[in-house]
Amino acid sequence: MSVSSYASYPPELSPDEEQYLLSNLKDWSIAHGLAVRPAPSFVQPSLDPAGVLAATAPVTLFPSLFPRTCFEEGLAIQKAYNELYSAIARDEEWLQSIVEELIDIDDFVGKLWQTHLAVKKEGYVQDLSLGLFRSDYMVHTDPASSNPSPGLKQVEFNTIASSFGGLSSKVSTLHKYLFAIDAYPSSTSSIIKQEALRQSNSASSLARGLAASHKAYGRSRTGRPLCVIFVVQDPERNVFDQRHLEYALFEEGGVRSFRLPFHQTLTATTLESDRTLVYTPPNSPSTSYEVTTIYFRAGYSPDDYPRGEQDWDARLHLEKSRAIKCPSVLTQLAGCKKVQQVLATPHSPHLKRYLPDESVASRVLATFAPIYPLDESEAGREAKTLATDAESAARYVLKPQREGGGNNIYRKAIPPFLKDLPETHWPAYILMEMIEPPPLRNAILRNGELQRGGVIGELGVYGVCLWRNGSGESDRGEILQNWEAGYLLRTKGDQSEEGGVAAGFGAVDSCCLVDS
Amino acid sequence: MSVSSYASYPPELSPDEEQYLLSNLKDWSIAHGLAVRPAPSFVQPSLDPAGVLAATAPVTLFPSLFPRTCFEEGLAIQKAYNELYSAIARDEEWLQSIVEELIDIDDFVGKLWQTHLAVKKEGYVQDLSLGLFRSDYMVHTDPASSNPSPGLKQVEFNTIASSFGGLSSKVSTLHKYLFAIDAYPSSTSSIIKQEALRQSNSASSLARGLAASHKAYGRSRTGRPLCVIFVVQDPERNVFDQRHLEYALFEEGGVRSFRLPFHQTLTATTLESDRTLVYTPPNSPSTSYEVTTIYFRAGYSPDDYPRGEQDWDARLHLEKSRAIKCPSVLTQLAGCKKVQQVLATPHSPHLKRYLPDESVASRVLATFAPIYPLDESEAGREAKTLATDAESAARYVLKPQREGGGNNIYRKAIPPFLKDLPETHWPAYILMEMIEPPPLRNAILRNGELQRGGVIGELGVYGVCLWRNGSGESDRGEILQNWEAGYLLRTKGDQSEEGGVAAGFGAVDSCCLVDS
Repeated sequence: MSVSSYASYPPELSPDEEQYLLSNLKDWSIAHGLAVRPAPSFVQPSLDPAGVLAATAPVTLFPSLFPRTCFEEGLAIQKAYNELYSAIARDEEWLQSIVEELIDIDDFVGKLWQTHLAVKKEGYVQDLSLGLFRSDYMVHTDPASSNPSPGLKQVEFNTIASSFGGLSSKVSTLHKYLFAIDAYPSSTSSIIKQEALRQSNSASSLARGLAASHKAYGRSRTGRPLCVIFVVQDPERNVFDQRHLEYALFEEGGVRSFRLPFHQTLTATTLESDRTLVYTPPNSPSTSYEVTTIYFRAGYSPDDYPRGEQDWDARLHLEKSRAIKCPSVLTQLAGCKKVQQVLATPHSPHLKRYLPDESVASRVLATFAPIYPLDESEAGREAKTLATDAESAARYVLKPQREGGGNNIYRKAIPPFLKDLPETHWPAYILMEMIEPPPLRNAILRNGELQRGGVIGELGVYGVCLWRNGSGESDRGEILQNWEAGYLLRTKGDQSEEGGVAAGFGAVDSCCLVDS
Repeated sequence: MSVSSYASYPPELSPDEEQYLLSNLKDWSIAHGLAVRPAPSFVQPSLDPAGVLAATAPVTLFPSLFPRTCFEEGLAIQKAYNELYSAIARDEEWLQSIVEELIDIDDFVGKLWQTHLAVKKEGYVQDLSLGLFRSDYMVHTDPASSNPSPGLKQVEFNTIASSFGGLSSKVSTLHKYLFAIDAYPSSTSSIIKQEALRQSNSASSLARGLAASHKAYGRSRTGRPLCVIFVVQDPERNVFDQRHLEYALFEEGGVRSFRLPFHQTLTATTLESDRTLVYTPPNSPSTSYEVTTIYFRAGYSPDDYPRGEQDWDARLHLEKSRAIKCPSVLTQLAGCKKVQQVLATPHSPHLKRYLPDESVASRVLATFAPIYPLDESEAGREAKTLATDAESAARYVLKPQREGGGNNIYRKAIPPFLKDLPETHWPAYILMEMIEPPPLRNAILRNGELQRGGVIGELGVYGVCLWRNGSGESDRGEILQNWEAGYLLRTKGDQSEEGGVAAGFGAVDSCCLVDS
């Protein structure tokens, strides 16, 4: 397969080809719950006060091309990533050193750390933690290298609310279905093949993680029936993504779960004297449940704490409880960008401490894009030189250490930006080598509009990890369950430098593997 | 279980109970394709030109109560009904006698008959016929009888385009799911029970019928791949109902099918010299298919033939072909109301001719509501006496012999209506004893509005029948496949005397069986 044949992928469609592809895509997506609640900009809420409308989730018409070796490497190293982040979450002392650097510039990290300290003071009563992780990558072709073979470079590692596992399973099934009914023109037959299309089993696999945690919790201490709680935002447009996990958990795992809007935490749950967490469904106050596992699909950003202390009390209340947290506050902190930066700082000693097997560590290391602090360290001084020079800055992105998208500064915009920023504020940012993805094209259907053009794909690999934290110095805990849990391909127009399908910049996609 | 406990079903819901039930119902329905394209009165088409929006299909919040004995009898006699209508469809001579009575007053029946004659002249080349039938009933409690036990009375028998088999499977799963997650208040626990909720397997079972026909067609005569054609209306709001059959046919039966808008018949299909039907997908003109089975979800009413001769040519073209028709023109004619009327005319000799087993015939007969012609026969003269007297007319409905809903005349409105109608026009109507359903209540969600109140339920029982027509007098054909294929419960507000969920008067529902 020559590169030039990829360059014409996907092909132009005739009106009849497009009609067949689109009508099948639109019907299949709704028939199978590959859907979102419509954006207010698309359907005014006043038009549908009861909320019965839904729309096809933003999707690509074609599966995007993805280098086979990169895809396989991403899946293969997920267990090592799970191990790494589980180990970091268990290393309170090291996390503290990270947090201390951030606490003055990031209130949110400070609040999370205080929540941990408050629970620690009373003593943690639950030794197990669950992670439903997602490691996000882009394909990188080093323009300066003599070896142009593509590699995976990590964009970020999500330890909380890793989304799209529900819809991802659906979109890979959709693309396989469209292939099976010949909705892709025959000119693609050398590219779109049965063996090239990869099913993501993320919905089932993540649900199995929740079921494993539920089981590991053990027997009910209160005699009440057991349940899992999904802590959610309200309203939530991406609700079907979450519901697919809930349905899989119920149908495949036989586990009941409830959706708990985060702001209702303190009215709908109570702590017994032994800190067993009890959930009372508002619709059925006479039946309460003992909570085995709290799955956070909210609480990951400052926006989820609009009421301040009241919301932080709610988070503390949950964190103190005996329920297994997915994730715990410490696990959430392990996912902050500063950790990624410290691990990816050239010559960092940390990775090999957490991953003693050198061959494993080196494969993980190979997925790091060099990340520099903008501080007084040696790497920091090097970074300042790179970032203030227009030519070298062109290969970098400046990212705020805070969580969430937005506000990245790209390439040549970095030197003037830093010039206007007092140097004391520079440590709030990290400098990351730009990932240079290969040029790709696709068509995206979102909000009823079809957009064609250059795209960038981001591969997310899900991981499930359940571990025992251990009681301290002599007992650093152990991993009880660890598996790779499917994948997400998220594709966005290449004009945008931000990601996030729900945030309005992209679409869910699946991989069509190619040999590079 | 006393009748009084049913009288309070379904219970009033507290706001929290309603919120839990509705949010679960709305999310589950979209996640599983229990959906319709929104009505233009709900969402203006200009708002969504690409057609990516969908809404929860009109559904009941609770499964409606249904007498167990009636439900079981309805399912048990479906095979006999399949046998009956297959036999009628094979009896051209008898059908001709029916059609001759209608031909002057019903152009549509006349056109169907002419289509049959035109094919007959050239000779039928396909000896097999498929029926995907649905027999519709209401529960009747005879107010005059000393025995108030409920019985099933047939409303109509559908031999073409029997709809809602796809959504019906989904709604029974939905109600079972809502029960499993305790969305029904505990006060209903003596009524809504596992064993009382009946799953409808109509989607799978009807798809198996199409697959059986596809297989019975035999090998390709042209070397082309084989397919089934769904002849559809365009646009079609109830598209997901049809898609679920298509997906089941593909996934469970491995059979490819295509949606063919009826008006595209003559451009997308051709007849070979041996009348093999060839379908060429507009999106892929280089690959054509040999059609084994034509499944009509359009063509059942005069509205589907807006272009007159051109549309009738299309119907003739399909009817002439070697593909197995579901249904054939003769099978469609067997479903006309006049046939139902003739069978249900008191002391009619016809039923026992088609169902020689007396015990079988008597069970079918018990589901007929007496139907009278308004003609010069003995039964007709009796009917005229009943219909023109205000007191006796109050137990009857006057229905036009044409197909399709609308224009029924009820009870005391009958005598003045007939008074204004020249008696020569009376034979265009039949007089049918009103079915007196027991009072029921439920809540219906449709177009985002929640309506509560008295309802009437209509049970539809699906049947699959594949038969050989036979070559004539000495060979009357034979039934090759015959099974009951699940059920539909359609529920409408009791103010309306017309049915039809898609037409805007009702909702899909499932049965909660009760012992009467």
